[in-house]
Amino acid sequence: MAAKKKRSGHPEVLTRKKGKRPVILVTNDDGITAPGLRSLVDIMSTIGEVVVVAPDSPQSGMGHAITIESPLRLDKVEVHGEVLGYQCSGTPVDCVKLAVNKILHRKPDLCVSGINHGSNSSINVIYSGTMSAAMEGAIEGIPSIGFSLNNYSMEASFKASQHFAKQIATRILEHGLPVNTLLNVNIPNLPLSKIKGIKICRQALARWEEEFDERTDPRGRKYFWLTGKFINYDKGDDTDEWALSNGYVSAVPVSFDFTAHHASQFLNKIKWDA
Amino acid sequence: MAAKKKRSGHPEVLTRKKGKRPVILVTNDDGITAPGLRSLVDIMSTIGEVVVVAPDSPQSGMGHAITIESPLRLDKVEVHGEVLGYQCSGTPVDCVKLAVNKILHRKPDLCVSGINHGSNSSINVIYSGTMSAAMEGAIEGIPSIGFSLNNYSMEASFKASQHFAKQIATRILEHGLPVNTLLNVNIPNLPLSKIKGIKICRQALARWEEEFDERTDPRGRKYFWLTGKFINYDKGDDTDEWALSNGYVSAVPVSFDFTAHHASQFLNKIKWDA
Repeated sequence: MAAKKKRSGHPEVLTRKKGKRPVILVTNDDGITAPGLRSLVDIMSTIGEVVVVAPDSPQSGMGHAITIESPLRLDKVEVHGEVLGYQCSGTPVDCVKLAVNKILHRKPDLCVSGINHGSNSSINVIYSGTMSAAMEGAIEGIPSIGFSLNNYSMEASFKASQHFAKQIATRILEHGLPVNTLLNVNIPNLPLSKIKGIKICRQALARWEEEFDERTDPRGRKYFWLTGKFINYDKGDDTDEWALSNGYVSAVPVSFDFTAHHASQFLNKIKWDA
Repeated sequence: MAAKKKRSGHPEVLTRKKGKRPVILVTNDDGITAPGLRSLVDIMSTIGEVVVVAPDSPQSGMGHAITIESPLRLDKVEVHGEVLGYQCSGTPVDCVKLAVNKILHRKPDLCVSGINHGSNSSINVIYSGTMSAAMEGAIEGIPSIGFSLNNYSMEASFKASQHFAKQIATRILEHGLPVNTLLNVNIPNLPLSKIKGIKICRQALARWEEEFDERTDPRGRKYFWLTGKFINYDKGDDTDEWALSNGYVSAVPVSFDFTAHHASQFLNKIKWDA
């Protein structure tokens, strides 16, 4: 991995040394047995040496959780063919940390996460274990991409997703990604022939209006299931939600610098000890 | 809650209607019994009507996790005095969702999370349950602040933290916060007399270089404890790490729009289907 020198006005870019077949770390949040992971492993195997480190059970909605209150297990498993596979008892973020530190003993050339069963566009990036794994990759200085298909079903077809995952991974291996940046790629649930192409977007401002499904257990105690309604209140035609609704693959560059720079002036005017 | 009209160049600001004592939601990630939570409840009770909804067990490092694979429990508990308290079986983010939806049936005027036992400056904002609870508050349109003390001990003194939590909460109740923005406040582990004041900062670019402590269980199977070394590679004197090292309380405005806008130009130049 070599960091290109930053030229004024241009972001510093992480690119890999040309030559050998790239090493590609594959992870996800739906767990090691998910069909979406298998699809990603298959397609990544056509462009590089794949190593899989994925959770041993589903970890959807885990956000950027890490495991610090209990120890982690890591077991070698059969994936298929030449692919080196491990399952981990922890979260998607733990998987990336263990992969770099205990399995590869180096940074892979690319970290890809998914293909998630369900969209991680707009606000979902925050709750998503898939995207948090990719973010952890970026924090470690690895060009990283999360892929998600806008279909929650375990029987979804990943054909179109595989096509775009290969295209995007190949280009990122060639061009690199600006430092401290990862990519959030969402694929509309359409056949390949109906998808219009890839659009670079911004994260739509949207949220889940939660509803709690309130029930009573056999012992008479109340419990709640979290559910909700997705509300997109962003009317822009440059958002990931717009792209997906209009037949495009959305690719949003994501930063792990969360500073809201635009708010600093407002805050600096406040007299705190008035 | 009323949104001030956006003037050109100024962020839209969420402020509350003047008059009645404000309703303040208090949560954390160290759990309902943590001394840091108690300190925050005590000091917030001097400026508003406090409602506590906090996890029933420690949830450090939970990031923005939500509970979707199991149902949630919510039980009324004694906190002290006039304070309405609930413990929840879920994550800090679940607590905020349940508080708004099932307990308050309205947005509180302020959501405060903490006081965390340990710093959530720089990259820690990403892993932190404390900060994710505040972020969830902001997503819901509530002015929200996370407070953390740079001391991990359960016996830490929260005296200085209480002073600044009151000062900052009071000012935010008066002035509001720009929409889609929350505040990450970290307090240095110093007596009040040694703290120089509050500094508005940006998130330092830093990371944890993980190390795994590898052990063998009584049955001969390997397991790992996640541990690590904090590395600040950001030399700026406008960062939260700088502020904390130099005796200031750091206040970083945080956004939940993660788009890396500066990377769009780079990505738009790539010919994806070349």
